[in-house]
Amino acid sequence: MSGPPPAVAAVRSAVRPGLRTSAQPVLVAVSGGADSLALAAAVAFEAPRAGVPAGAVTVDHGLQPGSAQRARDTAGLLRGLGLDPVLVVPVDVGTAGGPEAAARTARYAALTRCAGDSGARVALGHTLDDQAETVLLGLGRGSGPRSVAGMVAERPPFWRPLLGLRRATARAACAESGLPVWDDPWNTDPAYRRARLRAEVLPLLEDVLGGGVAPALARTADLLREDLEVLDALAGEHLARVAGPEGLPTAEVAGLPAALRRRVLRGWLRGAGVGDLQAVHLRAVDALLTAWRGQGPVALPDGAEALRASGRLVLRPAGSPGGRAGVAPDPEEQHP
Amino acid sequence: MSGPPPAVAAVRSAVRPGLRTSAQPVLVAVSGGADSLALAAAVAFEAPRAGVPAGAVTVDHGLQPGSAQRARDTAGLLRGLGLDPVLVVPVDVGTAGGPEAAARTARYAALTRCAGDSGARVALGHTLDDQAETVLLGLGRGSGPRSVAGMVAERPPFWRPLLGLRRATARAACAESGLPVWDDPWNTDPAYRRARLRAEVLPLLEDVLGGGVAPALARTADLLREDLEVLDALAGEHLARVAGPEGLPTAEVAGLPAALRRRVLRGWLRGAGVGDLQAVHLRAVDALLTAWRGQGPVALPDGAEALRASGRLVLRPAGSPGGRAGVAPDPEEQHP
Repeated sequence: MSGPPPAVAAVRSAVRPGLRTSAQPVLVAVSGGADSLALAAAVAFEAPRAGVPAGAVTVDHGLQPGSAQRARDTAGLLRGLGLDPVLVVPVDVGTAGGPEAAARTARYAALTRCAGDSGARVALGHTLDDQAETVLLGLGRGSGPRSVAGMVAERPPFWRPLLGLRRATARAACAESGLPVWDDPWNTDPAYRRARLRAEVLPLLEDVLGGGVAPALARTADLLREDLEVLDALAGEHLARVAGPEGLPTAEVAGLPAALRRRVLRGWLRGAGVGDLQAVHLRAVDALLTAWRGQGPVALPDGAEALRASGRLVLRPAGSPGGRAGVAPDPEEQHP
Repeated sequence: MSGPPPAVAAVRSAVRPGLRTSAQPVLVAVSGGADSLALAAAVAFEAPRAGVPAGAVTVDHGLQPGSAQRARDTAGLLRGLGLDPVLVVPVDVGTAGGPEAAARTARYAALTRCAGDSGARVALGHTLDDQAETVLLGLGRGSGPRSVAGMVAERPPFWRPLLGLRRATARAACAESGLPVWDDPWNTDPAYRRARLRAEVLPLLEDVLGGGVAPALARTADLLREDLEVLDALAGEHLARVAGPEGLPTAEVAGLPAALRRRVLRGWLRGAGVGDLQAVHLRAVDALLTAWRGQGPVALPDGAEALRASGRLVLRPAGSPGGRAGVAPDPEEQHP
């Protein structure tokens, strides 16, 4: 008796460890493209052997004519693989951040709801090639190591078992299994940045740098995530030690190296409920510590303000009339 | 009285702080290209005002016909700017690692010698665009955050005051000053990876990602270097605490998070004189800690071996125990 064809075997190997270590039910998120379909087939095969209940969910973005029918067809295919339940979830896609971002936001919200409703983890078909594109997109944003660190294999409720697998392998697995792949026209539409990275930038980089670029990007992302984990944990410890109801003591925080200081400040502001922090906000709050010359409060998103007073960084929430009364900038701290 | 033209002013502003904070003599390394020439002119103007002795050095790689004459012409130009001394240093370029790498190795060795002979720091004309190219090259190698972190502004004897300045500004400064720029044909030779990154990849990335890619890459490199500094320091502390003449205690090191463990192992091996460490070596040594199943010694460069014995990691040098001297240069330092 011969084993499965090679690409099918590769995809099954990729999902097996994650199914063996957790009995939590799995829902495979399936677009109908090669990556998610190969993932669905592998999970459908491996999950029963691991004693894990496995279903699927397909999101109908309603953006293309016939999308509802296509979602129903995909659902039929998934039921044929033995997955159960198979959910079809229609979503309303907004416009914020452009069409790619809006579709992603709606999709993740729907998948998160499904996970919550069913207590399942959601398996996503992102491959090593998706990871490489994500790293390049992050680089283009320039917002630092975090945006270059790419996607995480396991962040509840999401699970990405194919991050180490090439897209070509997923496609080959579908061909080997005779699964009908749907090629999302968006994936090749040159209007979309990710599609152009895929079709133009990565092949050119491969040519110029001598090949192996996508695995190199993915490897860098892996190592970066390990670095970030340590730094985030360290900053969390610092923050827990110094933060109090009266704010952050400037002396303790100002003395930290920049990489920790930025993280402590971010953790402090986030912990206080300040959302949508940009690099420009962090830099301005950091300047209250490291470039102090008596400057006034720093405006933060949603109308909150950070200021320096009596040797502390203080957060004044939006709409607080006069905020923390009696707190005024400390005259002795106003260096020229 | 009007001030200097805008690009000249920008380059002078970039060199000023570094000249005001150190009285050490400066030698500007000048290829004759726009970046280094603009740097030389700015240093020639600012150094006397800061009381800093400033000369220049031009390396003759001997790779192109007429290179000796060109070096003499450049030297004449530099003397005309008021720099003194102006050294012309001929080098023999080897072949190791390809023509780009061999020329770089010979050049840095010559500049390091000049710095040692004269007690000067060597100013290099690398710009923000060079930094972006370096980051992309590092990404292509996939050897981790360190190779993406780019060039450092200050690492004795080298000083790179123009890392925040665009290449176009340096070129404009030369034009404003009427300085004759020599365009190295290698810089546009499509046989060279850096030239192709510059001419093809970065413009395409700019187009796809909507502009600002070079500054974004440089910003990411800056933040990465801050992260690496903290992690390297932390790993150095761990290493100092646990390393002894009998090797590394496996229990203490195995319990560290991966990002620190890798760094502790690298520091330990480097400190013992093991040069030219590759990721594959580190992974194998790490497996002695984290995937121990009685495997044998791990072969390291130059015939050394790492093994696990009696609860310790032990290094067995090639042939002569303790006979190694000096640490090989950092392979990640692949700047232009």
